[in-house]
Amino acid sequence: MTTSSEHRVRVGVIGAGRIGQVHALNLAFRVEGVELGAIFDPDRAAAERCAARCRGAQVVDDERRLIEDRSLDAVAICSPTGHHADQIERCAGAGKAIFCEKPIDLRLERIDQALATARRAGVTLMIGFNRRFDPGFKRARQMVVEGRIGTPQLVRITSRDPAPPPPEYVRGSGGLFLDMTIHDFDMARWIVGTEVEQVHALGANLVDPAIGEAGDIDTAIIALRYHGGALGAIDNSRRAVYGYDQRLEVFGSEGCAVVGNVPPTTAVLSRAEGVTADLPLHFFVERYEAAYLAEMQEFIDCLRHDRAPSVTGEEARVPVLMALAAERSRREGRPCRVESPA
Amino acid sequence: MTTSSEHRVRVGVIGAGRIGQVHALNLAFRVEGVELGAIFDPDRAAAERCAARCRGAQVVDDERRLIEDRSLDAVAICSPTGHHADQIERCAGAGKAIFCEKPIDLRLERIDQALATARRAGVTLMIGFNRRFDPGFKRARQMVVEGRIGTPQLVRITSRDPAPPPPEYVRGSGGLFLDMTIHDFDMARWIVGTEVEQVHALGANLVDPAIGEAGDIDTAIIALRYHGGALGAIDNSRRAVYGYDQRLEVFGSEGCAVVGNVPPTTAVLSRAEGVTADLPLHFFVERYEAAYLAEMQEFIDCLRHDRAPSVTGEEARVPVLMALAAERSRREGRPCRVESPA
Amino acid sequence: MTTSSEHRVRVGVIGAGRIGQVHALNLAFRVEGVELGAIFDPDRAAAERCAARCRGAQVVDDERRLIEDRSLDAVAICSPTGHHADQIERCAGAGKAIFCEKPIDLRLERIDQALATARRAGVTLMIGFNRRFDPGFKRARQMVVEGRIGTPQLVRITSRDPAPPPPEYVRGSGGLFLDMTIHDFDMARWIVGTEVEQVHALGANLVDPAIGEAGDIDTAIIALRYHGGALGAIDNSRRAVYGYDQRLEVFGSEGCAVVGNVPPTTAVLSRAEGVTADLPLHFFVERYEAAYLAEMQEFIDCLRHDRAPSVTGEEARVPVLMALAAERSRREGRPCRVESPA
Amino acid sequence: MTTSSEHRVRVGVIGAGRIGQVHALNLAFRVEGVELGAIFDPDRAAAERCAARCRGAQVVDDERRLIEDRSLDAVAICSPTGHHADQIERCAGAGKAIFCEKPIDLRLERIDQALATARRAGVTLMIGFNRRFDPGFKRARQMVVEGRIGTPQLVRITSRDPAPPPPEYVRGSGGLFLDMTIHDFDMARWIVGTEVEQVHALGANLVDPAIGEAGDIDTAIIALRYHGGALGAIDNSRRAVYGYDQRLEVFGSEGCAVVGNVPPTTAVLSRAEGVTADLPLHFFVERYEAAYLAEMQEFIDCLRHDRAPSVTGEEARVPVLMALAAERSRREGRPCRVESPA
Repeated sequence: MTTSSEHRVRVGVIGAGRIGQVHALNLAFRVEGVELGAIFDPDRAAAERCAARCRGAQVVDDERRLIEDRSLDAVAICSPTGHHADQIERCAGAGKAIFCEKPIDLRLERIDQALATARRAGVTLMIGFNRRFDPGFKRARQMVVEGRIGTPQLVRITSRDPAPPPPEYVRGSGGLFLDMTIHDFDMARWIVGTEVEQVHALGANLVDPAIGEAGDIDTAIIALRYHGGALGAIDNSRRAVYGYDQRLEVFGSEGCAVVGNVPPTTAVLSRAEGVTADLPLHFFVERYEAAYLAEMQEFIDCLRHDRAPSVTGEEARVPVLMALAAERSRREGRPCRVESPA
Repeated sequence: MTTSSEHRVRVGVIGAGRIGQVHALNLAFRVEGVELGAIFDPDRAAAERCAARCRGAQVVDDERRLIEDRSLDAVAICSPTGHHADQIERCAGAGKAIFCEKPIDLRLERIDQALATARRAGVTLMIGFNRRFDPGFKRARQMVVEGRIGTPQLVRITSRDPAPPPPEYVRGSGGLFLDMTIHDFDMARWIVGTEVEQVHALGANLVDPAIGEAGDIDTAIIALRYHGGALGAIDNSRRAVYGYDQRLEVFGSEGCAVVGNVPPTTAVLSRAEGVTADLPLHFFVERYEAAYLAEMQEFIDCLRHDRAPSVTGEEARVPVLMALAAERSRREGRPCRVESPA
Repeated sequence: MTTSSEHRVRVGVIGAGRIGQVHALNLAFRVEGVELGAIFDPDRAAAERCAARCRGAQVVDDERRLIEDRSLDAVAICSPTGHHADQIERCAGAGKAIFCEKPIDLRLERIDQALATARRAGVTLMIGFNRRFDPGFKRARQMVVEGRIGTPQLVRITSRDPAPPPPEYVRGSGGLFLDMTIHDFDMARWIVGTEVEQVHALGANLVDPAIGEAGDIDTAIIALRYHGGALGAIDNSRRAVYGYDQRLEVFGSEGCAVVGNVPPTTAVLSRAEGVTADLPLHFFVERYEAAYLAEMQEFIDCLRHDRAPSVTGEEARVPVLMALAAERSRREGRPCRVESPA
Repeated sequence: MTTSSEHRVRVGVIGAGRIGQVHALNLAFRVEGVELGAIFDPDRAAAERCAARCRGAQVVDDERRLIEDRSLDAVAICSPTGHHADQIERCAGAGKAIFCEKPIDLRLERIDQALATARRAGVTLMIGFNRRFDPGFKRARQMVVEGRIGTPQLVRITSRDPAPPPPEYVRGSGGLFLDMTIHDFDMARWIVGTEVEQVHALGANLVDPAIGEAGDIDTAIIALRYHGGALGAIDNSRRAVYGYDQRLEVFGSEGCAVVGNVPPTTAVLSRAEGVTADLPLHFFVERYEAAYLAEMQEFIDCLRHDRAPSVTGEEARVPVLMALAAERSRREGRPCRVESPA
């Protein structure tokens, strides 16, 4: 028997829901240099189903036991948002490196407390803004970095989900901007490499009246003004009947990079009634499969090679500032400044 | 010799510049049921060059002589914007049907006076919002009308010129919104079939400092709110290095129609360094060739069959209201209501 | 009145059918430096309808009167193939420059006689292989000429009609290879700039039994071997339910140029059931509109500037040799050499 | 600790080269219901590197020990072609289910012996024609099966490698048709669901003179005639400078399905010099990643649920018959019948 487990990072996963399973499977089978050490979910059956798919990961009954397990080097936090800040603090207390799903919290104070705790503990903290690791968006970012589009002047982001979440989810979600647009806010600043100074958000409730009754919107346009003068626009919908619509465009003085949707195949059927192609990949698990793998690989590589992750807690805080400004803008019907990240 | 000139509408053209030539050539050679009667341009040589390309159209020395020529049924006004309102009024006085390039005027009062004059005279007046006649945009509009995208919820318009006009042009242009975005404002309301209630315009001077010195902007994002709740965003640039970028997207409860750029050919070259396709058609004369022909054909058909044109003076007035609101919004840094068209 | 008819070439058109109308309209309205002088068709009503669309072209009752009309410099022969050789000879006798639709004749001897007559008379003769003037195919040819694909090694041509012709047409057509593939044979040698040495043609009757009963095929694959070693394949069908399918690919040591179909618009509709785009332009009049105009412009330019046309009678003879070899190959079930053009 | 190894199929892998690693990694991490039991390669270091990537798979020193290992249910044969038949026979003798890379052998007699042995032993045998499991080609096949293209009439397959193999590989490869086109032969019959009756192969040595010196060709067109009348054409090159070019088209009485290349991203860059998109995925490991996974999953599912695999030894024998006929056709310069599979 020859094994090669030297220098493997051991990671525990908290939360065995949809995104927890994505990370657990990647840790178990696809990320190099790692071992999936343990899984916890308050719903033990869910944890066991997940472990079974991961061939024998240990299931633990108690979140604290996982966090304090000395055999684990790191924890991937895939619980509902409301638990993130507490779990970050507990993991920091136990000296664990932390990968945490976005957002850290819906309240800025809790984010700041959690970040301060992690900073004091000196642990690595990476937040799961997965879209930065999408091969297409990375290619566009690389074009910007290499100067191939010149100076960025306009950004356009389309981000539409295939179907709205249930109203009870909406109620606890922090609203469209903190729950959904937050990814686009991150993308907007990352793709250009400049901060957004001002947002103006228009919202509407066009998809599902229950979302309006829950006090939220399901359709939005957010106009952006960057420091330095570039402009941008994000559009969102909670329901695109044709699937997950995720597109990005960055236009500059020397060119324009456009990233389109990704279909499962390139098959095209021509018949008397038209030329038909595949719908885009349905939702985030399919569309961002490669991105989820690449982000976890970066997290593990950072731990193994003692590097700082690209999506720090401080990085992840800025889209929250943007979302809060957008929410204010929408309620007050006027453009609002984004609070300075510093 | 067999001829068939019965029932031909005779049209005179005022202005033999770039767009005047497009219309003159279409009237001379491609529009059915029409005869190009006469051409006037204050620059007589320009008029003669244009007439030569049109095989023998008469060149006249005096605008009034053309307008009052009893052998002409209609006049196509292709002069600079500052003359439109006067010429409309003179044509109306002479009982001529009028095709006039957009916009009617930069000042709302002059527009209203000219429209009132034309209305009192009972003459047909059509304004040249050519993009409505583009085969791609017409297809998208048809999809909306047929309910194939369901209820419109989001509109996105990209409209970027290949190169900025000279600063002296900019100075008299009325500004980006009245000069360039006006087409997009018309498109925005026409594609959905609903009026825009509120605009919020962000502008920047990123392309050419001389444009800023002329008091104008060259880059813009305009967020739109429609009556009924739909939202939209227009983005503009005075310079896209890759050519004329003219795209439209209308998203609704049942689907999404996207109209892309039009390349001159479908030839694609794959080499070791990449897969390369044609740039879009360079500018309006090429991109909207079919549209200019179709709009003039509609004008002539309206005259021959006594129908009202689809782009009346009243229709053409609304984008001016939108542009004025956008300009106010940009100056005041806040969303502004569009004055009601009624 | 200012006109500019100096140096205009005067052209008469023989044949007012589908393709005759295309050329007559181009001559009347779109080609520079030309005047449509007269139209003849044995069906006088057809000639008159065509003349009416061309605003007053003269209709003549007698083919000879047109050919011998001293006011005409050139004749465009758009009659059925069976008349081409005779008309070429008569035009040559009358000293007229000749534009003739392809093919010159279905019999090689008649082609050679007609070409010899034209040669002796010293008149310009151009044959209507329109596809060489298609902007997309021209772009591909230019890529080959500029060495951007390196040395050509493989050629693929897809050429499928939207619907089969009636059996009575098929009977007099000379068969699929002389009637339809002849365009592809011309394309195959022109795109590479090398002659085809050997063809192997496979045919089948899959579309319409009446075509089989008329002794012809409606589906074919023709494998080509070029002098120098490059290989090629053409595929044909008389019925593509989705419209006119006209594609070309040339692959070489440094790259590959692919020309796709041309849709009328770029509009794309995404709905729950799929992403749908336009069918290709329906048939040759639409797809090759620009090509027909460009080829006639070249013909006229050659006359005005005393240049030789690119598609001489000798050029046009080679695809006939290829078609004859293909027919032999199909009947004998083996590859056949193409007779040397020299 | 909760594990779920019940009912897992245990598989040993012979051969730790490029394709052996693909299968080993899939068996170790991505295929459901399986366990990677052991790896053998005559180059022990290669086997160990592969095992290390698979987290602790056992490395064995002796092919026979692996084949006779009672803890293994199945063997994946990923050795060079020359060993396949022997290994199939040994595995059959040991009662192992067999997954074997294509082709079984270059000689028909050895194929038939090996198939007979496996049949007598009653073991499951699946051959790795991976392209049938490509999502795009599967989609096209499904369209054919569902009748969406009607009756198939024409098939076009483009299959070009990014770079030629070294001449020493070519020498032992059995030639282009058995080594490379064999995939296309399999695709050609599978996509339509009908056997090919006759092939006519044209070959050339245009890419690398060393291939010609090794007695082989590197460029080919193969024309196909199917039972029932459909026609087809395959084109091959050993070097497409722009990467792995893998396309398929099946045209029928009711429509046409086209499967294009697959780029790594949809990012498109527009600059003044052109519109540039990604090259296709470079080679088989990248392009057919999903296909390799799906085929191995099918193999395991067949074992777990006692089903026959879709690519039996008999299925895999037919492309060899086609390749042999193509080779004869090329050498004799005439179309050749494909020996009946029965």
